[in-house]
Amino acid sequence: MSVSLPIAVDAMGGDFAPEPEVFGAIEAVDAGIGPVVLFGAEARVESVLGARGISRSAPGLEVVNADSVVTMDDHPAEVLRNKRDSSLALAFDSARAGRSGGVVSAGNSGAMMAFAVRTLGRLPGVDRPAIACPYPTKKGVAVLCDAGANTECRPLQLAQFGVMGAAYARLILGAKRPRVAVLSNGSEGVKGTALTREASEMLQGARTDAFDFAGYVEGRDVVEGEIDVVVTDGFTGNVTLKVIEGVGMAVTEILKGEVKKRTFAKAGALLMKPALLSMKARFDYAQYGGAPLVGVDGVAIVCHGGSPARAIRNAIRVARGFVNQKVGDEIVRVLRETGLGR
Amino acid sequence: MSVSLPIAVDAMGGDFAPEPEVFGAIEAVDAGIGPVVLFGAEARVESVLGARGISRSAPGLEVVNADSVVTMDDHPAEVLRNKRDSSLALAFDSARAGRSGGVVSAGNSGAMMAFAVRTLGRLPGVDRPAIACPYPTKKGVAVLCDAGANTECRPLQLAQFGVMGAAYARLILGAKRPRVAVLSNGSEGVKGTALTREASEMLQGARTDAFDFAGYVEGRDVVEGEIDVVVTDGFTGNVTLKVIEGVGMAVTEILKGEVKKRTFAKAGALLMKPALLSMKARFDYAQYGGAPLVGVDGVAIVCHGGSPARAIRNAIRVARGFVNQKVGDEIVRVLRETGLGR
Repeated sequence: MSVSLPIAVDAMGGDFAPEPEVFGAIEAVDAGIGPVVLFGAEARVESVLGARGISRSAPGLEVVNADSVVTMDDHPAEVLRNKRDSSLALAFDSARAGRSGGVVSAGNSGAMMAFAVRTLGRLPGVDRPAIACPYPTKKGVAVLCDAGANTECRPLQLAQFGVMGAAYARLILGAKRPRVAVLSNGSEGVKGTALTREASEMLQGARTDAFDFAGYVEGRDVVEGEIDVVVTDGFTGNVTLKVIEGVGMAVTEILKGEVKKRTFAKAGALLMKPALLSMKARFDYAQYGGAPLVGVDGVAIVCHGGSPARAIRNAIRVARGFVNQKVGDEIVRVLRETGLGR
Repeated sequence: MSVSLPIAVDAMGGDFAPEPEVFGAIEAVDAGIGPVVLFGAEARVESVLGARGISRSAPGLEVVNADSVVTMDDHPAEVLRNKRDSSLALAFDSARAGRSGGVVSAGNSGAMMAFAVRTLGRLPGVDRPAIACPYPTKKGVAVLCDAGANTECRPLQLAQFGVMGAAYARLILGAKRPRVAVLSNGSEGVKGTALTREASEMLQGARTDAFDFAGYVEGRDVVEGEIDVVVTDGFTGNVTLKVIEGVGMAVTEILKGEVKKRTFAKAGALLMKPALLSMKARFDYAQYGGAPLVGVDGVAIVCHGGSPARAIRNAIRVARGFVNQKVGDEIVRVLRETGLGR
């Protein structure tokens, strides 16, 4: 077996950086999905490693110093000029130079998009890279693409989101023949907008074994689990994912309150606790390890700003999967096969 | 006290018509919110009334025969020409002629929109009427407008949805000073689309006591209950409401399964039952009695196709509220006051 390239982790990106990033990297190495190279203020990174009794040159780990940090307030266009020495920029430089296999960051996702597209470029045939975000359904997990990278879209871009989301669903999430559908305001073909209708026609016309196109999916059915890849523009996608998260949490809270109201508080709480924890786990983004940026010529995993170590570890696992499964090659192949390339 | 105008109910519209419509009308009269006039195939309506031992000329009730029915498959544009003798058309004719105060239907909502706009016309200053749909939040109920009448919108239309939704929230749902926000993919002003940004600027500039404008609301926060009126285009609105419904139901089901898995089935089911019923009630559209079509020069309440009698009764109550509270006058007043009229 050949030696794997390390996954580059932006140690300074998240809301609680660098602790979760460093601990996530340690967990990844322990889990056999290293090596990992950490980009960040080396004194701080070393100090966090030291708290676990680990040196910066421990097997499977590497630390590269970066003099600046991209903050959540930084504008994507500006960081491309002003933050060339940031942990995020250096992580992407390493991926571009072939010194790492992919980048994981819990930082500013707009800046990450910008660096990814600028540094790695797009895959041949891809018009706009997108965020493919996993979310929980009744039956397991599905993907929504685009989750927010492209607020306003053209039909071909939507069709490509379907191809790219399907590659992720098949090669990483284990959907054998992903069912792809376009999110719309009704299941009949006459519904939707010009955008959704044209994108549907394109996907309908695609001849491929890589996925099945199922037409429109309504909002009511996105969590049923019959569809593996929900295709939409980044505005609607962002709203949809956040509604799923908000309602999931709200319903869990409300039910907890109802049960407590109606039983001896202690008995009710005891009985509900495992069920609520299990429910919380389903809506816990940390288990999915971030959302891949699909369509760039390389691997980039966008993590939630508040990611704990476990989320970073899982994102490293997803990045490793993208490298090993050659998800990019599959996207290029299917875009060619279907004629949906740009 | 003056004699109230009857509320016109399309007895043939719903999936289970005419039973729920007729029983809902009887319940409304019993609840003191009549009179009600039922439009439909008189033999069938009389037979349903007869099953309850009620004659078609019982106090508070009236039956008007209609020779045809608008089906769910009918195209809105075509029914305007071909179904002038339908129960829906005649109900709107009665409202236009001042023989009824408003129309309730659980039928084809596109056809209802078409008849409402054609027959009643728009309120002065209103560009596009919209569906203002109530939905459950952690704290009670909020309104989403537009819920699906206008798939693609312009900024002024969105701003007007805010004004119209606020009038409904204040005068019917009891929000003292409704907080209005535009649904977007982030809370910062730089987020969103050209449409949401321009609509926000218009609402931001509105000087009125009728509502407070709170900027953008994210998908995550629509069920928190801090916002009373969520403003969006009909495409995103439809998706959002259906996601809320789908996730609400799915989470309830999943939690039920989790509790059962972990306890002696019978004890778990017994303990959960009241909480689940209470949760189901929150997500039960029937309690809200349909969604008002706001912006038409009259009163029209769109009910869910599967509405039971209780939903029809509640829709009649909402229609009665729109008449008594003069919601239309309030909309016209606030559009003038804010300069948001067309």
